[in-house]
Amino acid sequence: PQWELKDAATKLKRTFRFKNFMEALDFARKVGELCEAEGHHPDIGIGWGYCRVEFQTHKINGLHENDFIMAAKVDELSGAT
Amino acid sequence: PQWELKDAATKLKRTFRFKNFMEALDFARKVGELCEAEGHHPDIGIGWGYCRVEFQTHKINGLHENDFIMAAKVDELSGAT
Repeated sequence: PQWELKDAATKLKRTFRFKNFMEALDFARKVGELCEAEGHHPDIGIGWGYCRVEFQTHKINGLHENDFIMAAKVDELSGAT
Repeated sequence: PQWELKDAATKLKRTFRFKNFMEALDFARKVGELCEAEGHHPDIGIGWGYCRVEFQTHKINGLHENDFIMAAKVDELSGAT
């Protein structure tokens, strides 16, 4: 699955799969640093073999153009399409 | 709150608070590296100002002594008591 709309379309979420824990952790760190640089912070979930990234514009409790832009940048980072 | 038992006592979870996104991300990385070294992997949630750590022994879908040991080690790492 690619990016999904969650919680009545107030969140944009995608789960990336990895072959172990450390690769998921490394990806989370890269996503975190990218998002820090862009000033738009996701919620990230990490565990063995996965990293889940969720964007929401908290101020409006919904989605804004920025969330979609960040999602595209995270895709680029992952090499996913 | 300290460590809580979740999901009918099949998970052990604690949320640590931070003053921004990067501190939460850094803590998650440290927890991840500790757990990798110990060979017992948590699920970690990160976002602005928080890092949530959840332990479970997936093989038994419940809690094992190791989960409590890892929780104590994460506490030490955090400086929390």
